[in-house]
Amino acid sequence: MITVEQARALLFDLVGPLAVEEVPLSRANGRVLAREVTAQRDQPPFDASSMDGYAIKTTEAQKDSMFRVIGESAAGHGFAGTVKAGEAVRIFTGAPMPQGADFVVIQEDVSRNGDLITISDDPGTNPNVRAAGGDFRAGTAMSAPRRLRPQDIALLASMNVARVPVTRKPVIALISTGDELVMPGEEPGPDQIIASNTFGLRAMLEEAGAEPRVLPIARDSHASLETAFDLARGADMIVTIGGASVGDHDLVGEAAGNLGLKRSFYKIAMRPGKPLMAGRMGDAAMVGLPGNPVSAIVCGYLFLVPMVHAMLGLGAHTPALLTARVKGDLGANGPREHYMRAVVKDGVATVFDNQDSAMLGVLAVANALVVRPPNDPALADGAEISYLPI
Amino acid sequence: MITVEQARALLFDLVGPLAVEEVPLSRANGRVLAREVTAQRDQPPFDASSMDGYAIKTTEAQKDSMFRVIGESAAGHGFAGTVKAGEAVRIFTGAPMPQGADFVVIQEDVSRNGDLITISDDPGTNPNVRAAGGDFRAGTAMSAPRRLRPQDIALLASMNVARVPVTRKPVIALISTGDELVMPGEEPGPDQIIASNTFGLRAMLEEAGAEPRVLPIARDSHASLETAFDLARGADMIVTIGGASVGDHDLVGEAAGNLGLKRSFYKIAMRPGKPLMAGRMGDAAMVGLPGNPVSAIVCGYLFLVPMVHAMLGLGAHTPALLTARVKGDLGANGPREHYMRAVVKDGVATVFDNQDSAMLGVLAVANALVVRPPNDPALADGAEISYLPI
Repeated sequence: MITVEQARALLFDLVGPLAVEEVPLSRANGRVLAREVTAQRDQPPFDASSMDGYAIKTTEAQKDSMFRVIGESAAGHGFAGTVKAGEAVRIFTGAPMPQGADFVVIQEDVSRNGDLITISDDPGTNPNVRAAGGDFRAGTAMSAPRRLRPQDIALLASMNVARVPVTRKPVIALISTGDELVMPGEEPGPDQIIASNTFGLRAMLEEAGAEPRVLPIARDSHASLETAFDLARGADMIVTIGGASVGDHDLVGEAAGNLGLKRSFYKIAMRPGKPLMAGRMGDAAMVGLPGNPVSAIVCGYLFLVPMVHAMLGLGAHTPALLTARVKGDLGANGPREHYMRAVVKDGVATVFDNQDSAMLGVLAVANALVVRPPNDPALADGAEISYLPI
Repeated sequence: MITVEQARALLFDLVGPLAVEEVPLSRANGRVLAREVTAQRDQPPFDASSMDGYAIKTTEAQKDSMFRVIGESAAGHGFAGTVKAGEAVRIFTGAPMPQGADFVVIQEDVSRNGDLITISDDPGTNPNVRAAGGDFRAGTAMSAPRRLRPQDIALLASMNVARVPVTRKPVIALISTGDELVMPGEEPGPDQIIASNTFGLRAMLEEAGAEPRVLPIARDSHASLETAFDLARGADMIVTIGGASVGDHDLVGEAAGNLGLKRSFYKIAMRPGKPLMAGRMGDAAMVGLPGNPVSAIVCGYLFLVPMVHAMLGLGAHTPALLTARVKGDLGANGPREHYMRAVVKDGVATVFDNQDSAMLGVLAVANALVVRPPNDPALADGAEISYLPI
């Protein structure tokens, strides 16, 4: 058996960044920018007023000065002429500064009488002008890779980047295996249960940025598994759930082996989680998850999501852990790294007593997996622990 | 002018939870569960083995006991008969316990010879049986409201809830206003800029769980604004961006007023952000955001996202703030609540020097808005500050 960290390193070896595709800006949020893009123009594209007021020359920006208003500059409609000594242009926030003017007296500091204005209060020294290119210049780059957020989308729009190069979403085939499984909405027989992992993992992978495809449930036979693997062709990753060791036979491993699986590893020293196997199968990475619902979901967070991130070009990273203080005592951990369901609130982690890997109910009320290293000694109330938020 | 908190309270008055709709489980992740749902069955539906081994009677679970193997119980295929004294059934993880058996000797503790097995090691006292209903019972409820996560989806599947009652997504019409705006991909005139807020807010609202609809840009005329408001009919919320005060005229306010806007408030004492107006307009809530890119996005996080959450039935909540230590000194704050762009890393907040509300570039590299209360005194390096992660 190998450690969680060793397993993740081997899993990262199975995948790499996918190709780049272009999407319209309206579909780019949450996608991963695949390569640097550059602004198509300066922003602002011209010196712009940052206030409503009157554009004049700085040299004349003094209390009691008088000006003749010769025109108006509004957002979208600049003033075509030039401002000379003793002249002012009515100007609004965001509007282009007229030629010859480099100062905006705010309207609150001005009294107006027809076409004449007088600066009635000290106009100060702030010119209230946003310089052309002050936000960014044409050619300014947005660096990649990065997961695009709403504010990045706004900036890309502002840069006039209408089509965005992003990493293609990894296609992940999900194959649940087992004679005992039926799909939600079906009527299970007395010995059957509902396939729950497929749906949980599908949601998780979609959230992570992948394009999951749920395949028909594979039954516990070579023929059925081979059909499923066949349907998975074209996927970037194939994930089987359950059946990694079905009693006396490792049916999934055998079927995958027959189809050319180059096995990278088989078991990981972790709870919940083993068995888990992985390797290359043709052009795809193949990961075999345990069938216990909690094990499958925990392995999803620990291994599949980081693999998706790697395929999206975000790099091969260990999921970031946070720290909290444990509530109550925790017994010593055994030789396997243990991911314990817990609720973290206000920096305090309450670990559930029942860590049975079949208990989905406990997982659904948890918001954290507290990480216990192998052979971690017993912890007293208040001890610092690391956890993965889920 | 009113405070941010007063504004949010008034905004919450404009919206309420929307109707319930049913979606298939495969589309339910990230949606808000609108009402309690209950498990359709026990899980496990039967006493199930938690290990691979042999099912026997507890009374006979002793080292050196011998048994005749009378059949097999696998996942999906239970054993139909009854286990009597001196008998064992080969059993696999997750398989139903046969009648008469209540203990599973793990296979590692057994030596087998044809149909006969002998317990070769101390089998311990753990029966390795998961009791029927141990995870949940038929009728066990998943409480609402809650934003469904992957582990909730897995649990719902396991409960055999194939269609999920969720709150309808609020439809939000986005109207950018201004003669100076063109859409990304268009060729702007010399006095024009690209409409960036629409795209940023669209991404933000979609992420928050709404269904944003981008309407054509409204020009700075009553006719154009009325056309846009007309196109917005049927939306749960109408958001205008920019033009809340265009020079001498409050065109958006006037046009909205002509169409029946019942104004709730007009300005908020915050930076960046004012002017911002809000009210009811027919069946819809109406919010007018400032046109400065940063102001619009910040107002989106502070006001629109909480309003979406309220419409989704998650309650009327102030966005949750985190705390960090400020790096370097920060000057005293003025009379308006200030949301300062910053980068928070390892608990330390580095606040950008340039807080100009037109600087999208600064927003796109920020991951936090540090909150300065009105008249907050100057802060020394290391002082604790609150921030909103973005």
